[in-house]
Formats: sequence, C-alpha cells, structure tokens
Amino acid sequence: MQFIEWVDGKLRVLDQTRLPLEEVCLELCTWQEVALAIREMKVRGAPMIGIAAAYAIVLGVQAVEATSRADFLTTLEDIAGAVASTRPTAVNLFQAVRRMRMAAQREEDIAQIKAALITEARSIQADEEEATRRISLLGARLIDDGSTILTHCNAGALATGGHYGTALGMIKAAREQGRNIRVLATETRPLLQGARLTTWELLRDNIPVTLITDSMAGYYMKKRDIDCVVVGADRIAANGDVANKIGTYTLAVLASENSIPFYVAAPSTSVDLSISSGQEIPIEFRSPDEVTHVQGVRIAPEGVEAASPAFDVTPHDYVSAIITEKGIVRSPYAEGLSALRC
Amino acid sequence: MQFIEWVDGKLRVLDQTRLPLEEVCLELCTWQEVALAIREMKVRGAPMIGIAAAYAIVLGVQAVEATSRADFLTTLEDIAGAVASTRPTAVNLFQAVRRMRMAAQREEDIAQIKAALITEARSIQADEEEATRRISLLGARLIDDGSTILTHCNAGALATGGHYGTALGMIKAAREQGRNIRVLATETRPLLQGARLTTWELLRDNIPVTLITDSMAGYYMKKRDIDCVVVGADRIAANGDVANKIGTYTLAVLASENSIPFYVAAPSTSVDLSISSGQEIPIEFRSPDEVTHVQGVRIAPEGVEAASPAFDVTPHDYVSAIITEKGIVRSPYAEGLSALRC
Repeated sequence: MQFIEWVDGKLRVLDQTRLPLEEVCLELCTWQEVALAIREMKVRGAPMIGIAAAYAIVLGVQAVEATSRADFLTTLEDIAGAVASTRPTAVNLFQAVRRMRMAAQREEDIAQIKAALITEARSIQADEEEATRRISLLGARLIDDGSTILTHCNAGALATGGHYGTALGMIKAAREQGRNIRVLATETRPLLQGARLTTWELLRDNIPVTLITDSMAGYYMKKRDIDCVVVGADRIAANGDVANKIGTYTLAVLASENSIPFYVAAPSTSVDLSISSGQEIPIEFRSPDEVTHVQGVRIAPEGVEAASPAFDVTPHDYVSAIITEKGIVRSPYAEGLSALRC
Repeated sequence: MQFIEWVDGKLRVLDQTRLPLEEVCLELCTWQEVALAIREMKVRGAPMIGIAAAYAIVLGVQAVEATSRADFLTTLEDIAGAVASTRPTAVNLFQAVRRMRMAAQREEDIAQIKAALITEARSIQADEEEATRRISLLGARLIDDGSTILTHCNAGALATGGHYGTALGMIKAAREQGRNIRVLATETRPLLQGARLTTWELLRDNIPVTLITDSMAGYYMKKRDIDCVVVGADRIAANGDVANKIGTYTLAVLASENSIPFYVAAPSTSVDLSISSGQEIPIEFRSPDEVTHVQGVRIAPEGVEAASPAFDVTPHDYVSAIITEKGIVRSPYAEGLSALRC
C-alpha cells in the first residue's frame, strides 16, 4: 500500500486520523476534499502536505472550463492560494504550490498546462521520495549499532510518501544495514502521531519500539538510556532554527542538558532561506478541543479554557546536525544551509 | 464536600478516577478496600495517601479479635505492612504507617490501642491539613500580583485533604490575598491529573486556568509567558532532590534554561532524611496500559510495548526553593532540610 497515490485522476491517501485501529483509504476527487483532508490532518507531515497540495491543484484545474490562458491562470491562482492557506507552518506546502504555479506559467495553452501540472505533481512526489531516501541513507551513518533512538511525532513514510520518511527513515536505513537498534517513541499529544503512527510504522518494519508519554522522555534521557534524538522538521530558518511538532523544543533542551546528540532530518524543501530566524515562523494554533479531548473522549471539565500551539521552534544552538538529501549540515548553519542551494 | 472523611467508622473518599465528569463518593469499610483504592489511584497525592493509609489501619484492627496484646500487635503489623506496600514512591505513606505503629505500641490493652489508633489517624489528617494551610500562606509570598503560574499534576486539596493543597494551596492563598493570577495546568499524562483534577479544583475556586498538554510547557516558558513553576513532591531526599510525578524533571530543566523560578511545595512529612539523594528513591512503574490507553480508549496499535515510570527525580540544583509548613528552604538544602527536624 502506498500512503499517497495518484490513480485514475484521483488522489488516494490513507486516512491518518483513523490509524492505527483502522486502515481506511480515502479517494479524493476535488481540490476542496484535499484541502479539508490536510486541514483535518487526514494527510499530514510537511513533505506529504506538499505532495497532496500539488495533486489538489491538479484536481482543481481539471474541472476548469476557461477559454483563455489568462482566465485559466487566474483560476489556478485562486485555487493555489486556497490550497496554500490550509496550514501555516510547514514550508513544503508553499514550495510545492510555487513549483506548480511555475510549471503552469511555462506552458502555452490550457491543454499543455493541465498536462504539465500532472507531470509536475508527480515530479514533486518523486523528488520528495528520493530526497527522503537519500536523507535516510546519509543519516543512518549517525546511528551506531546498539543505539536507542528517541523520536517525536511521526517523521516516517506516512509524513513523506515513499518507503522511508525522514527521522524514521534514518532509523529504518540503519536497521536495513543490520544495526541492532531500538526506538523510544513519544506519544505526541495532542494528536498522538507517535502513539498512533510511529509505532504502527515501526511494528510493520519489525523495529523494536517502546511507547512513552511525552513527559517520560526526560526520565530516560537523565538515565542516559537514549543515545540520540532524531526528529523531522516543518520549517527550518536560514540560521538553522527548527519549527517542528510541539514538544520538540523540550526534547532538544533535555538532550542538550544530558549531552545527547539532537538530530533534525528534513528535505531541503523544508529549509526556508527567506527568513532569517525561527521567530519569523508562523505557529499554527489548533482547536482547544484537541487538548480537552483525546480521540473524541472528553478528559477535562466542561468550560475549561485550553490552548493548542501545534508547533514550537528549537533554536539552532540545540541542534547537533541537520540531515538533508544534499548533505549533513552542522554549525554554523547559516553557511551550511545557504550552500544547499548550489 | 470533604475529599476524605472518617464517618461512622467508615472512610468516605471522592473517587478521583471518575473526576471531572462524575463526582462519586466511595465508602470504604475494610483495609483491603482502602489499599485497593490507593493502588488504583482512586485516592492519590502523597499526603492524602498517608491519611488514607492511617484510616486503613483503623479499619483493619476494628475486625481483629485477638485475645492477647502481642497477638493483636502482630496482626496490626501484618496489616500495616500490607498497607505500606500499596505504592512505593511517596514517603508520607510510610511516615503515617510508622506513626500508627508507634501510637499502638504506647498503649497497654487492645481497647486502648483501638481507641488510640482512631485518635492518631484523625491527628495525622489534622496535621497534614494544618501543614498544607501553612505551606499555602508561606508560599503565597512567592507569588507576585499579575503572575502566570505553571503547575503539573495535582497538588491541590484532592492530594492532601483540607482546603488548600500544597502547590495549588500557594496559588489559592495568593488569590485569597487578592492577587490577580492565572494558572497554566499541564494535563499530566498518563493519568491526566492536571486535566481532570487541577482544572476541576481551580474552576471551583474561580481561579483562571488554561489547560495545555505536557509538551506545550516548553513553548510557554521560552516565550516567558510563565513567571514561576510550582509543583508538589512525593519524596524529598536529604540533599533536596525531589521525586514527583513523571514530567516534573522536564519542567525543572525547562525552567532553569529559561531563568524561571521552580518551587516545590510539600509538608515536612514528604522529606526523607534517611536517604542522602534522589537516586535512592524507588520509582514506581505502573501498567503499560496506562500509556497505550487514555480513559479506557486504546490509542496505540495492539501488541506495542510501552513503559510507564510514574515519577521522576529532579536534582536539587534545579529547585529554587522548597516550601514546607516549617519554613521556606533554599540551597544549601542539606542544611535547611535537616534543620526542619528541630
């Protein structure tokens, strides 16, 4: 099963909100359906959102009946803008939408544009999958035999498409290379991507995994039962500051305090050289219901206020290395990250 | 409603596992029922467990029909041992059981012992309640007008009996003194004492509270939206190391990293001068089901391994002050804590 697949002019995705208890495949036929699936996190993970957004634009333009190229491109712009507004933090979404716009602008007539958009969406997917394969092989070098690796949220194939993922990709590749490793997965409240998705992926790949709550990571770091922390990223600023799932900053501080390497694995599409530091990254706030409820079950009194920042920013000082498909970048990050452009 | 009450020869407690959605009162008639209620965390919180254990012994000896004082004391020892083995980390349990044993030994005959045990249990309860009242008034001095206070787990009246609690007691007293404050409460996975109990107590007292997941505390500390962290303790070693609910160590590290005061509020019965450091404090591991499930709902794949350390140890270096009923202790803790004995 592919987690995201373009089949017969429709986008087929695994509904990630139903995992791990049910494996439900969704067939998305309109750009609005894809946008809703992204918003509701049925499709999630920075690279995966980019891929889904590209196909959303393909679905959007299929139905457009404009007679002039200019009208067609105007409608395309509207759809692209709406797709780009589904979630604010992960930059891959905007990169994918930009690539789709540019692909359209290169073509002469409407039929050519439609064809080019399908090709470009497939190419975005192929590029992300190839990038994560390379990240996995490069990053696996950082994982020693006998290691216990802590990971947060889900940065596996569910978040990227393809076979590997980013943070989980490094782990899978290390395992494929015969290293004896085990994983501690944080459950990742509020939406439990660690408990629901990361454990599910690792069990499928027969990689030993132990689930803990987010609050237990410190206990195991202090005991030095963890050899390294590996996470993905939703956006990386030019100075190396990393926006990732809420709780990542905490793990980085704990890792630093206990002298444990803290690695970030992400394709270069997650790097945003247009912003100088993490302070400029917009942080999505999601519904307080995601905090007051777990899988639809109320856990707090009626009427209590709750807050739900979905991401935090880890300053680059806490990051031991950023693993991209173009190489492993270490401090000074400004230099290393800008060199990725070459 | 009292959260724990000795009425007509029975122990009445509020079932804390049913809060906040249901307020169910339990009437416990045997020591085994009390022991089970402690184990299942229907009654919880270090001082509260001590009080419940004392009454459990009262219930246990009521039924004993020994003819000699020696036989009676042997049975008492068996019951006391069983009650003391319900949970390993909080030291108040052992302190309360020790007081009950000593009260028994002071008396001549069985009738006198039985009467003395009731008196001693009532006195343990009164002492804990008075201690938490004093802690609250003393500790309130540390809370400035306009503060936002982060607290973890539940260290309120539900954890201690009486009106105040320890960490929440400081907050309640500051509010009673007219200070304008607000609380950020971490949900405290796995058993959600923050989401279920702390918010419930604060809403009853009309103290503004915002619920967050454990993983969000770092986000708010880094933004300096938190003025101080206040937690309770299950056991404090002679050097000031603090065992408390899992996740406390993480909050202490985050507070230190962001120059935010980190306060521990606990009665002197939580101080264990017999051990030199936190490394000697036994950490309870609870059922992995508490991690793979939330309020009975499965959140992880069947067959996944999970771990559930219920407490962690915060080294004294991270603690800004320990507030006890006998005074506020600051570093060097070894000196200050041993002086509490006087």
